[in-house]
Amino acid sequence: MMNYSLNHVPKRTAKPRESGLTMVMDKGLSIREVEDMLSISAPHIDIVKLGWATSFVTPNLKDKVKVYQDAGIPIYFGGTLFEAFVARDQFEDYLRVLDQYKLEHAEVSDGSIEIPSDEKCEYIRRLATRAKVLSEVGSKDAEKIFAPYKWIEMMQSELDAGAWKVIGEAREGGNVGLFRSSGEVRQGLVDEIIHAIPAEKIIWEAPQKSQQVYFVKLVGTNVNLGNIAPNEVIPLETIRIGLRGDTFANFLPEKTKKRFKLGKYSGDKRITQDE
Amino acid sequence: MMNYSLNHVPKRTAKPRESGLTMVMDKGLSIREVEDMLSISAPHIDIVKLGWATSFVTPNLKDKVKVYQDAGIPIYFGGTLFEAFVARDQFEDYLRVLDQYKLEHAEVSDGSIEIPSDEKCEYIRRLATRAKVLSEVGSKDAEKIFAPYKWIEMMQSELDAGAWKVIGEAREGGNVGLFRSSGEVRQGLVDEIIHAIPAEKIIWEAPQKSQQVYFVKLVGTNVNLGNIAPNEVIPLETIRIGLRGDTFANFLPEKTKKRFKLGKYSGDKRITQDE
Amino acid sequence: MMNYSLNHVPKRTAKPRESGLTMVMDKGLSIREVEDMLSISAPHIDIVKLGWATSFVTPNLKDKVKVYQDAGIPIYFGGTLFEAFVARDQFEDYLRVLDQYKLEHAEVSDGSIEIPSDEKCEYIRRLATRAKVLSEVGSKDAEKIFAPYKWIEMMQSELDAGAWKVIGEAREGGNVGLFRSSGEVRQGLVDEIIHAIPAEKIIWEAPQKSQQVYFVKLVGTNVNLGNIAPNEVIPLETIRIGLRGDTFANFLPEKTKKRFKLGKYSGDKRITQDE
Repeated sequence: MMNYSLNHVPKRTAKPRESGLTMVMDKGLSIREVEDMLSISAPHIDIVKLGWATSFVTPNLKDKVKVYQDAGIPIYFGGTLFEAFVARDQFEDYLRVLDQYKLEHAEVSDGSIEIPSDEKCEYIRRLATRAKVLSEVGSKDAEKIFAPYKWIEMMQSELDAGAWKVIGEAREGGNVGLFRSSGEVRQGLVDEIIHAIPAEKIIWEAPQKSQQVYFVKLVGTNVNLGNIAPNEVIPLETIRIGLRGDTFANFLPEKTKKRFKLGKYSGDKRITQDE
Repeated sequence: MMNYSLNHVPKRTAKPRESGLTMVMDKGLSIREVEDMLSISAPHIDIVKLGWATSFVTPNLKDKVKVYQDAGIPIYFGGTLFEAFVARDQFEDYLRVLDQYKLEHAEVSDGSIEIPSDEKCEYIRRLATRAKVLSEVGSKDAEKIFAPYKWIEMMQSELDAGAWKVIGEAREGGNVGLFRSSGEVRQGLVDEIIHAIPAEKIIWEAPQKSQQVYFVKLVGTNVNLGNIAPNEVIPLETIRIGLRGDTFANFLPEKTKKRFKLGKYSGDKRITQDE
Repeated sequence: MMNYSLNHVPKRTAKPRESGLTMVMDKGLSIREVEDMLSISAPHIDIVKLGWATSFVTPNLKDKVKVYQDAGIPIYFGGTLFEAFVARDQFEDYLRVLDQYKLEHAEVSDGSIEIPSDEKCEYIRRLATRAKVLSEVGSKDAEKIFAPYKWIEMMQSELDAGAWKVIGEAREGGNVGLFRSSGEVRQGLVDEIIHAIPAEKIIWEAPQKSQQVYFVKLVGTNVNLGNIAPNEVIPLETIRIGLRGDTFANFLPEKTKKRFKLGKYSGDKRITQDE
């Protein structure tokens, strides 16, 4: 995979991964654009989400799904679609959609509607019998802010109900849930979650570069990250292994850091300005 | 078109449309990129603008124009090109360009230069004999702010002169004319325009997602929207029909809103943070 | 090249150029995306940088490099890759990478690590025997701000050491080095550099539109600009020749400006709001 040899490059996990996942958000790629993305990024993509309910208005959806499946890249439909079915009392129809497209992954979320926790867990339990469930915690509503213990409680009970991974909500634009409206990370919240839930069970939505850098510095090379834009997969891969400016010093030996005055980058969570 | 069946999805108008138009801004797509866009979004695209004077520096322009025309998608050249010809006393040459590329739509604008109102209407009258005229109101200059009655007066006289549609200026980046430099909508202005001019005669430039959400909530599913980026056509389509978080509750029955605590989204013009 | 005839359009230099260069940043295009970009923009692209160390994680790198080379577009690997090799005491390996991919251009930078000036010049001297060297001045670190005389001193000594061009650092996102964190240009700095160093020896990194407009207004149509996104090459070309709103008046005769009330755009460095 690597085109030339560099020392001190941290090791990435190999596919199929449980940690170090990159989840891509496809919000309306054409079939040829999917092929383009896979031709350059497939080795670095673990799973793709067809964003929210974009699948509803996508022509040739069957063909598009097939391109991903033929390439061995699992896909799933965004949580908003699940919610759209639930809000219309059409959950049984949703199950048929999963069958129809032979989807092996499904998202459960309550970002747009309110679902009582035990009801949400019941959906997870039912879906878990036929698919790997990604369960999203956190609201799309900028005004609904949960305390850390509440996030952890929700994540834990959703994992107990059978969720394969829990997802920390950020929305596509990256400013709700885990993030302040400025795009800044709610650090206290993240620290508490990390302390309580195994890293490999969480996918952090991190559409913006500064967020990706933040989580790589905090959790490490093989952190699970989601909502990555198609043309940001290659850039993210370099961030993970310390080959972009922002994480350049993170995986170098102390001696090197000292010699090139890189010390201050290593221990802290400093992010260089870039976006 | 729809890949599975969901209740309470508002009805879109069918092509060729007079309302519910999506106008896409192409600022330099390659021929294959045009094909890609059309392969996924053609059912949702009504008309394409080759932005400002990008047509001047586009190689293989004839071939590119042909791809659109063969697909039955009308195109036109941006208003800045019209102004570039007018400012050089080359309006007659401009007419020849329209003929040369067999364009059936033409834009008249005064975003970069000042054209007295009656002179602008005269251009509209002349062009209207050979093309459907899109006439843009509002300046690209952030310092030139017109009062609402002035906007309405201009729109009305340009429609009277034969314009097919009037366009509310926003520029590509979305922060001039209808919008404050923060990207916020000038709501009083928009309300007065809507009150005075028939909705189907106006195309609102709304390149940013928050603006698209705003107009869909204000005018409805089948509002005319312009300057949509090629990869935002599919996302916009979901916003129009209440299948993205921001408009999720707008088309659901009261009973459903109540049950899932969606009430506050319905009547107001609230926009969730997302970009 | 031009599809129709307009008067008062400033003359662009012809390829191969020493001034008026457009350098594109490729941060992970697929081979077909490279072909797409070249099919529409090749006449306007002078050189392409494979951003920072993206080449390390790019599959089929050899094939990708070949597509550019077959099209007669020179490429080089970003400066962060040079630094990654230097920081690992692998500079000799870096030379082998240049040979392996038959690269005729190489970047030397010290954006992530600190390299004493004479050591940096020594790298330039060594590389200049086998490649055209692009030498970047300015730090990726938002906290390291150099005085103008220091920038000029560094640029001059790097040119003396054999650099083909010096590059004013901006990073991909456009907010470090030449720019304040707001994205605003550090104007005093730029004025002093322009006064001291020949324009054709400098490539200004200007990823954001407002920055491109700034440099075209300050230096002229044929300013060297870098870190241009693939889909911004066509738009930039219109900015260079006064066919986008922001520079619309810059190349028109005084008589025209007066008639259409364009005077205020001409002399000043005013930028209309757009992004």
